[in-house]
Amino acid sequence: MFNSIKDLIIGSPLPTQQLVGKRLNKIRALAAFSPDALSSIAYANQEIFLGLVVAGSAGLAFSWPIGLAITGLLLLVALSYFQTVHGYPTGGGSYIVARQNLGTLPGLIAASALTVDYLLNVAVSVTAGIAAIASAFPVLWPYRVALSLGLLLVITIINLRGLRETGTLMAIPVYLFLFTYIPMLVYGVIRAVMDGPGTLAAVAPAPTAPLTLFLLLHTFSTGCTALTGIEAISNGVPAFKPPEAKNAGRTLIVMSVLMGMLFLGSVGLTQYLAVVAGSQETILSALARRLLGSGSAYLLIQSCTMLILFVAANTSFAGFPRLAAILAGDGFLPRQLTSLGDRLVFTNGILILAIASGVLIFAFNGDTHALIPLFAIGAFLAFTLSQAGMVVHWWRERGKGWWLKSVVNGVGALATMITVIVVVISKFIEGAWITALVIPIIVAVFLRVRAHYREVTRQLSMDGLPPSLKPVPIPRVVVPISGVHRGIVDAVNFARSISDNVTAVYVELEPGAGERVRQKLAEWWPDLNLAIVPSPYRSVIGPLLDFLDETDRLHNDGQSAALVLPEFIPAKWWQSLLHNQTAWLIKAALLYRRRYSGFLRVIIDIPYHLRR
Amino acid sequence: MFNSIKDLIIGSPLPTQQLVGKRLNKIRALAAFSPDALSSIAYANQEIFLGLVVAGSAGLAFSWPIGLAITGLLLLVALSYFQTVHGYPTGGGSYIVARQNLGTLPGLIAASALTVDYLLNVAVSVTAGIAAIASAFPVLWPYRVALSLGLLLVITIINLRGLRETGTLMAIPVYLFLFTYIPMLVYGVIRAVMDGPGTLAAVAPAPTAPLTLFLLLHTFSTGCTALTGIEAISNGVPAFKPPEAKNAGRTLIVMSVLMGMLFLGSVGLTQYLAVVAGSQETILSALARRLLGSGSAYLLIQSCTMLILFVAANTSFAGFPRLAAILAGDGFLPRQLTSLGDRLVFTNGILILAIASGVLIFAFNGDTHALIPLFAIGAFLAFTLSQAGMVVHWWRERGKGWWLKSVVNGVGALATMITVIVVVISKFIEGAWITALVIPIIVAVFLRVRAHYREVTRQLSMDGLPPSLKPVPIPRVVVPISGVHRGIVDAVNFARSISDNVTAVYVELEPGAGERVRQKLAEWWPDLNLAIVPSPYRSVIGPLLDFLDETDRLHNDGQSAALVLPEFIPAKWWQSLLHNQTAWLIKAALLYRRRYSGFLRVIIDIPYHLRR
Repeated sequence: MFNSIKDLIIGSPLPTQQLVGKRLNKIRALAAFSPDALSSIAYANQEIFLGLVVAGSAGLAFSWPIGLAITGLLLLVALSYFQTVHGYPTGGGSYIVARQNLGTLPGLIAASALTVDYLLNVAVSVTAGIAAIASAFPVLWPYRVALSLGLLLVITIINLRGLRETGTLMAIPVYLFLFTYIPMLVYGVIRAVMDGPGTLAAVAPAPTAPLTLFLLLHTFSTGCTALTGIEAISNGVPAFKPPEAKNAGRTLIVMSVLMGMLFLGSVGLTQYLAVVAGSQETILSALARRLLGSGSAYLLIQSCTMLILFVAANTSFAGFPRLAAILAGDGFLPRQLTSLGDRLVFTNGILILAIASGVLIFAFNGDTHALIPLFAIGAFLAFTLSQAGMVVHWWRERGKGWWLKSVVNGVGALATMITVIVVVISKFIEGAWITALVIPIIVAVFLRVRAHYREVTRQLSMDGLPPSLKPVPIPRVVVPISGVHRGIVDAVNFARSISDNVTAVYVELEPGAGERVRQKLAEWWPDLNLAIVPSPYRSVIGPLLDFLDETDRLHNDGQSAALVLPEFIPAKWWQSLLHNQTAWLIKAALLYRRRYSGFLRVIIDIPYHLRR
Repeated sequence: MFNSIKDLIIGSPLPTQQLVGKRLNKIRALAAFSPDALSSIAYANQEIFLGLVVAGSAGLAFSWPIGLAITGLLLLVALSYFQTVHGYPTGGGSYIVARQNLGTLPGLIAASALTVDYLLNVAVSVTAGIAAIASAFPVLWPYRVALSLGLLLVITIINLRGLRETGTLMAIPVYLFLFTYIPMLVYGVIRAVMDGPGTLAAVAPAPTAPLTLFLLLHTFSTGCTALTGIEAISNGVPAFKPPEAKNAGRTLIVMSVLMGMLFLGSVGLTQYLAVVAGSQETILSALARRLLGSGSAYLLIQSCTMLILFVAANTSFAGFPRLAAILAGDGFLPRQLTSLGDRLVFTNGILILAIASGVLIFAFNGDTHALIPLFAIGAFLAFTLSQAGMVVHWWRERGKGWWLKSVVNGVGALATMITVIVVVISKFIEGAWITALVIPIIVAVFLRVRAHYREVTRQLSMDGLPPSLKPVPIPRVVVPISGVHRGIVDAVNFARSISDNVTAVYVELEPGAGERVRQKLAEWWPDLNLAIVPSPYRSVIGPLLDFLDETDRLHNDGQSAALVLPEFIPAKWWQSLLHNQTAWLIKAALLYRRRYSGFLRVIIDIPYHLRR
């Protein structure tokens, strides 16, 4: 029954050979990898507005210059990644590029930064989507956290169903967004030309902070979140239809042009028309309302913004599990993350991302603005390391035009590195410190995991074992019994079939009970040894373990007694609640407490199944 | 380390022979069993006030008559229970009395009603205690739920430490309450005589509902919560020092007189002095403020009210686990509830009560008034059944004065039965329906549990087994392996030591991997059979189970192959996250899925312990 419910929600299992077929064409790939990048304008514009509005109309006048600076950075980074796509046609995520060219540690730092970035992209996109729709319907405001978590659940289920189906479903909102937003911006430009500029000084609130260089840098660094997501395509090259690199590169160009257009268009119109927003509305909502009124056209824009933001969260669901699988394959994360689930997706990675971002949304109370300071640092650190890696890559390869390519990536690395420094300094207290703390912790986890796997490989090696392996002698056998009943019959008989030295053990909780067991046992197995272990503190496990210890010491034959456990299995799950789980507790104690290290402790389960 | 933390909080284990020593003298017993009864005035008065105030001053004028009626009922019930204490010196809870005299089903109904009563007593007492202190410090109001849950945790820990220590700690607040509240009431009577009566009409709010008979009945039924807890002593007779019955009876008399005095005193003064309370204050707080002002004397009274209410919750922690243990001993609840914990208390019962009442407090948002409609029905149903049982008891015994005793209990039964009917009718919609639904559900659970235990006893009986039991033949053996490494060496060798027919099984996730395993395996065990099972859907468990099925069918010898499982045990718990728990999953599938019913499926664990 559980399986059929799972099939209904997730879909039925797919065999491994279907894997190659699940590739994306350019139209679908744009929908799958671009929403994060395209939708970034929703929160980046908002952060620019919130950063500058404290300095009044003088501050807001800097929207356009800052927008231009960010767009310039966008072009640099896009160019860099275009080169990465071609330099690494098999998938050049920041981790791979940094690790191969700069070394393991820089690679792991990039991987850790990307992990944080993926996680925050989910949290920020989902909450910003809810903010977009709550700008239109303020009644939804108190339910932000619950709505965000509900949507996260929906996105998770969709992703568990598999990548191509994801692409189909996700394509609709992405193109809906493009085909409503771009016409609105065009209409806005026409209106702007016809109506002439607005006057910021007339509408901006009075300044509450002086206009300083620090304020501008701070605003620039929060606005840089507009670039987040641009790396998604370079990570996902193998998901494209062949020729992968060419298709991915073209998709990247289209995406970057769209990003620049949307970002500059909305920032420019906002400043030119002198649009400002109240505390209960996003700046994009205010711009749309100014251009379209509050009617159905406005609601369509807000709905499309919300939808693309939800789809943006999906970028992480495509990217993170893939990164985790690569890291796990290299031994830096648990191996389970490499296994494809029933639907040929990395199920474990999807679930981890969903849970972690759910916790983040809950902890930050669904507030996008509070999450933003944690965000950009991860993305830009990964950009920097990846592009620095590309410089080394071209330099090592020395192919055609390597010098020019190195310069392009070098400029990109420098620009993004400066951005990282600006972000860390200007947003440290507001939350960047959390990211700055978490990134090295994740790196430490990566290294610890690999150390463990290496140690395991060493311990499991067959090197040094004698070439001919002989059967081990059959040991003494101990059978713990809870009384004399049908449940122990098979256990006692099996024990006697593998060993001549069998002892039944009864832990006596009430004085006198042991003697009754001895008499009844003798009726059925007259020659069976019985040890009665008193338990003054009413515990079964402790005295039994002590007894095993004691007899092992007495025999002093370098061996532990094997344990034959009669295990009582109820017919229905709820019936287990009605029985002491003694067999289970004994196994847990023996296996995990390591009280008997050095000896081989064989544990033999003889189940007795209840019929109903 | 876990054990030492547990010892610090709960105390170190006590041996079984200390059990008899843990008896209570009368002073301590009053503290342990009376707080529920005594503290009931805190919410009963409040409910009378809230019930009548809607009818304005004309309604509030009925406080005294209703108070008198409830006190009359109190005397009847107290007399009844005094007889129960002497009729059942070994502990005559409603369940035992009803079951022995009326039959199993009435007994179980009483037990179910008591369970609900215990649970609601905890929830109501804790939340009313918080309401008392929040009347004095309104700043605490928004944190009611968190404060209630925190206090519940403290009470739970205290109870897990054991009954006598509980008595000592709990005695202080009970006597503190009596020695502050009674003097306040005496002072109030003196003031009343000197100052003369107040005028209700001058202070009562305007009526919002007509004064009807239904309103008076409704108020009476909510006010009857003043009686809850009176049965605690009769349930706990064996906890008294010998002579148990005599000591318990005297304690019951003292307690009932105190209850009547506190209840009538506060209801009478409230009406005579024309005290009313606003929406942010309890009526008892308003009375205390009227008499004592808002200074330190008032704060002392409120603190003592809060403290005794917390101690009142403790009555349930003494009573419910005892009831659950009796029910479990009779086979109506899981057996684990009969086992005394390390500290000679019924640990499981205490934990169940704590969790269930925590859920209740959370679900009803810590609001006493919302919980009250669920409350009285359980208590009064148990009263009725218990006293009806006593009538039968005296009639069967026909001892000295049996006729008079029967009449006393009969009148008690009749009065409480009428109260139950009034409660159900007048509070059905407000929440009594929940209790009316839950009580039969609990009874159904009791019956289902007993049916299961009876079936188990039948299935486990050795009757009909042949008198001489022979060893079972050593079966075919299958060893699932994940590769060729040290972790499988002991398992393969042990398998070969108990059987000549050993097959290793490798589930092949990637094509070609099986052949490599075959070659490597042959280097070490040239004569070992290897079966390679392909897995197109990348699952290990399913194909392995299918293979076992298949080979069992092929052999057709009426036997299942035994399974020897190499189990990989990491040195530290977190390392388990880095490995697939395949051995565990195989065991779970074989033990609980019952795919192989009919066969004996032996499962042999050969652990391989990692060293660090």
